[in-house]
Amino acid sequence: MGNYGEVDHKAINTIRTLAVDATFAANSGHPGAPMGMAPVAHVLFNKFMTFNPKNPSWINRDRFVLSNGHGCMLQYALIHLFGYEVSIDDLKKFRQIDSITPGHPEAHDTPGIEVTTGPLGQGFSNAVGLAIAQAHTAGTFNKPGFDLINNHTYTFFGDGCAMEGVASEAASMAGHLQLGNLIAIYDDNHISIDGDTKCAFTEDVTKRFEAYGWHTEWVKDGDNDLEGIEAAIKKCKEVKDKPSMIRLTTTIGFGSKLQGTGGVHGNPLKEDDIKQVKEKFGFDPNQTFVVPQEVYDMYHKHASEGAAAEQEWDQLLEKYCGEHKDLGADLKRRLTGKLPEGWQNKLPVYKPTDKAIASRKLSESVLEAIYEAVPELMSGSADLTGSNNTRWKAAVDFQPPSTGIGEWSGRYMRFGVREHAMGAAMNGMAAYGTVIPAGGTFLNFVSYAAGAVRLSALSHQRVIWVATHDSIGLGEDGPTHQPIETLAHFRALPNCMVWRPADGNETSAAYYIALTSTQTPSIIALTRQNLPQLEGSTIGNAIKGGYTAIENKEAQITLVSTGSEVSICYEAVKYLKDNHGVTARVVSMPCVEVFDTQSKEYRMSVIPDGIPALSVEVMSTLGWEKYSHEQFGLNRFGASGPYKEVYKKFEFTPEGISKRAVATIEFYKDVKPLRSPLNRAFVQLI
Amino acid sequence: MGNYGEVDHKAINTIRTLAVDATFAANSGHPGAPMGMAPVAHVLFNKFMTFNPKNPSWINRDRFVLSNGHGCMLQYALIHLFGYEVSIDDLKKFRQIDSITPGHPEAHDTPGIEVTTGPLGQGFSNAVGLAIAQAHTAGTFNKPGFDLINNHTYTFFGDGCAMEGVASEAASMAGHLQLGNLIAIYDDNHISIDGDTKCAFTEDVTKRFEAYGWHTEWVKDGDNDLEGIEAAIKKCKEVKDKPSMIRLTTTIGFGSKLQGTGGVHGNPLKEDDIKQVKEKFGFDPNQTFVVPQEVYDMYHKHASEGAAAEQEWDQLLEKYCGEHKDLGADLKRRLTGKLPEGWQNKLPVYKPTDKAIASRKLSESVLEAIYEAVPELMSGSADLTGSNNTRWKAAVDFQPPSTGIGEWSGRYMRFGVREHAMGAAMNGMAAYGTVIPAGGTFLNFVSYAAGAVRLSALSHQRVIWVATHDSIGLGEDGPTHQPIETLAHFRALPNCMVWRPADGNETSAAYYIALTSTQTPSIIALTRQNLPQLEGSTIGNAIKGGYTAIENKEAQITLVSTGSEVSICYEAVKYLKDNHGVTARVVSMPCVEVFDTQSKEYRMSVIPDGIPALSVEVMSTLGWEKYSHEQFGLNRFGASGPYKEVYKKFEFTPEGISKRAVATIEFYKDVKPLRSPLNRAFVQLI
Ligand SMILES: [Ca+2]
Ligand SMILES: [Ca+2]
Repeated sequence: MGNYGEVDHKAINTIRTLAVDATFAANSGHPGAPMGMAPVAHVLFNKFMTFNPKNPSWINRDRFVLSNGHGCMLQYALIHLFGYEVSIDDLKKFRQIDSITPGHPEAHDTPGIEVTTGPLGQGFSNAVGLAIAQAHTAGTFNKPGFDLINNHTYTFFGDGCAMEGVASEAASMAGHLQLGNLIAIYDDNHISIDGDTKCAFTEDVTKRFEAYGWHTEWVKDGDNDLEGIEAAIKKCKEVKDKPSMIRLTTTIGFGSKLQGTGGVHGNPLKEDDIKQVKEKFGFDPNQTFVVPQEVYDMYHKHASEGAAAEQEWDQLLEKYCGEHKDLGADLKRRLTGKLPEGWQNKLPVYKPTDKAIASRKLSESVLEAIYEAVPELMSGSADLTGSNNTRWKAAVDFQPPSTGIGEWSGRYMRFGVREHAMGAAMNGMAAYGTVIPAGGTFLNFVSYAAGAVRLSALSHQRVIWVATHDSIGLGEDGPTHQPIETLAHFRALPNCMVWRPADGNETSAAYYIALTSTQTPSIIALTRQNLPQLEGSTIGNAIKGGYTAIENKEAQITLVSTGSEVSICYEAVKYLKDNHGVTARVVSMPCVEVFDTQSKEYRMSVIPDGIPALSVEVMSTLGWEKYSHEQFGLNRFGASGPYKEVYKKFEFTPEGISKRAVATIEFYKDVKPLRSPLNRAFVQLI
Repeated sequence: MGNYGEVDHKAINTIRTLAVDATFAANSGHPGAPMGMAPVAHVLFNKFMTFNPKNPSWINRDRFVLSNGHGCMLQYALIHLFGYEVSIDDLKKFRQIDSITPGHPEAHDTPGIEVTTGPLGQGFSNAVGLAIAQAHTAGTFNKPGFDLINNHTYTFFGDGCAMEGVASEAASMAGHLQLGNLIAIYDDNHISIDGDTKCAFTEDVTKRFEAYGWHTEWVKDGDNDLEGIEAAIKKCKEVKDKPSMIRLTTTIGFGSKLQGTGGVHGNPLKEDDIKQVKEKFGFDPNQTFVVPQEVYDMYHKHASEGAAAEQEWDQLLEKYCGEHKDLGADLKRRLTGKLPEGWQNKLPVYKPTDKAIASRKLSESVLEAIYEAVPELMSGSADLTGSNNTRWKAAVDFQPPSTGIGEWSGRYMRFGVREHAMGAAMNGMAAYGTVIPAGGTFLNFVSYAAGAVRLSALSHQRVIWVATHDSIGLGEDGPTHQPIETLAHFRALPNCMVWRPADGNETSAAYYIALTSTQTPSIIALTRQNLPQLEGSTIGNAIKGGYTAIENKEAQITLVSTGSEVSICYEAVKYLKDNHGVTARVVSMPCVEVFDTQSKEYRMSVIPDGIPALSVEVMSTLGWEKYSHEQFGLNRFGASGPYKEVYKKFEFTPEGISKRAVATIEFYKDVKPLRSPLNRAFVQLI
C-alpha cells in the first residue's frame, strides 16, 4: 500500500482546512462535503485526470463536474492548488460580492469550472451531456492512429443529486447510451440536510444504477482507503461499454467534532472545532489558508504533466490535420466557436404566395436545409420526433453501434421522455465545445426542464429548444397540454431568448439568431397548425426581434402580436377598416428579448408615441404591458377541441381583436401626450 | 381457468371498440393504450375495485389513476359502463369543445376521474400522494374493529411515465414509505412515440422498482391472461409492507392491423382497420359506440355492489361516531371541506413594535400556532426542514412505524430532495379529501416542480408551497439559488396564488387565504432575512391581496411593493421627503391574484388615478406594468455575497428607490389625464 505517502495526506488535509477556513471567513457555506470528499478528489485529480490549468479550454481535457455544487470549496481548493487563475486571495473572498468564488460554482465566472452547479441533480446530468458530446466528437473525428478525443468525464454527486428526478432520467439515458467514458462517484455519507438519509432515502442506489445498465463499484472506506479508491476508478476505466458508478462511503465533515452529522453539512465549523481539526491534521491552529509548499509542488507537478500532455496532443492534431484535412479544419473551426462561412445562405426564404405551413414543419425545413452546412448541430427530441419535426431525413441516430440502430457519430438524439435530463444534458453538450444541441418537446413540457433552462441562461449555454404545440392552437389535447404561462416564465428569465415566429421567414430568423448567439439559449415556440406566409415578413426584419409588418401612417392603433396570431391581426386590419372605419398597423414581435436590444429610436419607430397599442397573444398577458397599452390574451386555461373552435371560443378572431382595438382607441383618445409604452422614465437593471 | 367467460371478453372488446370509435369521431386521440390495457382494466375494476358511481366522492372508495392519461378513452369507457354521470353522448363528444370528455382526463370536469393526468409521470406520482393520504388517514382514524379507511390506490403507467424523473422520485418515496395499499401496473408494451423503446429506454424497470423497495410481479401475456392478471393483483394485495408494481407485457393497439407499433399510439385507426377490428371482436362494423346489454348488466352489477359497500361503510362510520365521538366528528367535518370553527383566531398577530423576524420564521410561527386547530394540515419539506422552518416542535414524522422514526398518523413529511414528486404527491394528497398538504423548498426550486404546480392550478387542488429563500436576499448561495423569474412564472399561471408577505401579519393573512381557498394552490414566498413588523399592516388589510400601507392625500407618487422591499419603501418615503421634498404613499401587494379579485373601486383607491406608481420588487419586472407606471426590479441574475451588500449592489436601498421615484414623477408630470394602470379599456378573459 505504499502508493500514498505523507504529502498525499498533507494535500488532502490542506483541501479540508482550506474549506474550513473559507467557510468560516464567509460565515456561510458547506464544509462537510469538501472534508469528506478530499481523499477521492486528491486521488482522482492526481492519478487519473489530465488537464492543463494554463489552458482550461483544451478540448481533450478530462472533465470534472461537482454535482453537489454546494461543496464548491473542494473544487476551488483544487483549482487553486493546481495553478488555475484562482489565487489564495480569491479563496479568501469565498461567497463575497463580485468574487470569482461564488457560493456555488459558476462556469462563466471561474477558470477550471466546467459547468454551473448547485441546483441538485443538474451537474450529474451535465456530466452525461459532456460524455455524450465526447463520444459523439470521438465518433466523428477519431481515426485509426488518431485517438484524438478520448477524455473522460468524472462527476461527484451526493444523496441530494441521487434523489433528484433529473439525475435519474440522465442516469437511465447514460446507461442506455453505454457511455463508457463517464465515471460518477457517489458520496454515500448517509447525510442530507434533514439529517440521516434513513428518514427519506432508503433505496438501494447501486442496484438502481445496475438496473440502468451501469457498472458499479463500492469503496467502503472512502475516508482512508486511497488505494481502494484508486483501484475502483481504475476498474471503471477498464469498463468501456458502460458508464460506471462508484459508491464511496465517506464521513461527512471528516475530522470535525460533528463529523458524520448534518451539523457539518451547511454550516461553518465553530472556532474550537476548527482548532482541533487543524491540530488533528498537523496544521497550525493559529494560521488560516495555509498551503504547505510540498503540496503546491505535488499539484503543480501534475499540472505540468497536463501541460505536456496538451502539447503532445497539439502535435497529434497538427499531424491529423495533415492526413485528414477536412475533418481537421472542421474541428479547428468548431473550437473557435464560429459557424461555417455562408451557412446562413441555406436558410429557407418564403414569399407571401407560398403555402401555409405549421411552424413546426417550417422548423423541420430549416434543419433539413442547414444540417449539412452546420455539422456541429445535433438535434433530438424527448420522444416526440414525429410531432416536433426535429429529424432531418438523412439523420443517423446517436446510439452505441452495438444497438444496430445508430452510430457514435450520429447527430440525432433519442432523449426519451426525459425533458429535464434533456435540458441538463444539452447544457453539458454545449459546454463540451464541439456541438450545438437542439432538443424538441411540446412547449408545455419545457417547463418540466425549468431547472435546466435556468442554468442554460445563467451559464451562457447555446442550447436550442424546439418547442412545438405552442398554444391552445394544439387543439384537442386540451388544457393539460396548452401553454398559458410558459412564455411569460421564460421571458422573465434573464439571458434566455423566447422566439415565437409567425411564418417561414421568421422561423429562419429565429434559427439564425439562436445559432449565432453563442452565450444565450433559445426557446423556439412553434405551432401545430398551419400558418400563412406573411407580406412584410423577411429574415432581415425578424432578426430585429420585432418590426412593423403592416405600416400605415394614418393608423389609429398598433396591433402587436406574435406567432400564429399575427396573421389573424392581418385579417383584423381589414375587418377594422371594413366594419369600423378604423385604420390599424401591425407589429410582429417574434422575440421581445432581441427587440429590447435594438436602439430606442428603432423601437420607438415600431411602437410609436401618439397612438395606443394592443397586444394579441393567446396566452398570459403578463409582460405585454411593456409593449402595449392594452392586452388581449388568455389569463385562464384553454379548452380541448378542434383548434379553430378553441380560437373562436376565446374570440381570437378578426372580430374579437377588432372589438378590443376599438375599445382601446376609445379609451385612450383623451390622453395627451399618449406615450409609447417603450418610452420609460429610467433604464432597467439588466 | 373458468373465471372468465364470454361476457368478460365482450366487455373488454366493448372498451376497445369504444376507444376506436371515439378517437375516430374526434379525428384525434390515442386508441393504442385503451386497446392494450382493456383486459387489465376489466379485471381490476370488476374483481378488485370497490366504488360507487352514484357517489364518486365516497371517501373509502378505491382510487384509480390513469397516469398515461392520453389513453383516457379507456377511463371514459369504464366510467360510462359503470354508470357514472358520463353518457354515451359524452363519449361521442370526446375531445370536443366544452364536453366532459376532454383530450386528457380532468378531475374537476368529469365524475369518476380522481386526478388530472396526461403530462407524463404526474399521475403515477399523484397515486403515491393518494396512497400517502390513505395511509395517514387510516393511521389517524382507524381503531380496533373499525377498519374505516382501507382503500387501495391503483395506477396504470406506461413507458413515458416510467422515463419521467418525477415518477422516479415518487417511486423512491413510495418504496421508502412502504405504501402497502399502492399497486402500480406498468404497461410494458415496448412502444413509445418514437417507436420501439429500444431506441431510448432499455433499463430493467423491474429491477429499478425492486431497488426502491417495491414488490414486483410480471404478467407476460397481458393481452389474454386474465387469470394471470387477477393472480398478480391478488398477490400484490397480500403484500402489506411494500408498494407493488406489476409489469404487464401487452400489445399496444391490440386487434388493430398496426398492433404492436407506434402507428397505433397517437392516431385514430383507419376505416378499414376499424372494420376488421370490429369483425374480429364480433361487433357489427357498421355500427359505432355499441355497448351490448350484457356488458352494461355486468358493470352495473358491480356498481351496485359498490353502492352496497358504501352503505355498509356508512353504517360503520355511524357506529364509529358513537364510540369515537371526537374523531368521528373530525372526520365528518373534514369530508365537508370546512376548516374547524375559529381556527383563524390562532393566527399570530403582530404590532409594529414587535421585533424583526425572517418571514420563513413567521411562517413557522403560523404553523406552530395553528397545527392543533387544523388537524388536516400536513407539513413537510424537500429535505430543507431547518431552512424552510416547516416543522412545528411537537410534530411527528409520517413514517412507517417499523422505521422507528415516525407513525402513520404523523403529520410531517420527509419528502427528500424530490421537489417535483413532492408537488405531484401533494396534488394526490389534496385530492384524497382528508388532508391539506404544505411542502417546503427554496422558492427557486419550486420551478423543478413546475409540471406539478401547473396541475395543482388546473385541477383546483388546495396545495401550499412554503417557498423560502425567496430572492437575492438569500445572499451568499448566489445566483444559482436566487429567484428572478419565479414569481412572474407563477403569477402568469392561472388559478395559482403567489404570496410574498412583508411581515408577520401579512404572513398570517397568506396562510388564512391559502387554507380557506379550497380550489386554488398557493405559493408563499418567504425571506431568509429578517423583516420589521410594519405600521399599517394588518391581517384584514393583507387578505385583500394589496392595500394602502402608508396613505398620504398629498402624495406625488405611489410605491407598490412586496415582501422584503416594502419596509425599504417605508424608508424611501422618509428619504424622499428629507432629500427631495417629495411626498410618497406606499402600497403593499402581497398577492396580486387576490388583489385582482377585489372591486374596481377598492383597487382604484389603492392605486389611484392622478399620480404615477412605481413598483419595487427585487426580481423580474415582468408583469408589474399592470400595477405601476414604472418598475424597479432585477432583470438580470443576482450575486453571491452577504445580502445587505447584494441589495446595495443593485440599489435596492431608500436612495436607489428614491432616485427612480423622482425620475418617475418627472417623467409623468405632463401626462393628462394620468390614469391608474388598473384603469383599463376592456376586461380580460379569466
Ligand atoms: Ca449526503
Ligand atoms: Ca409504451
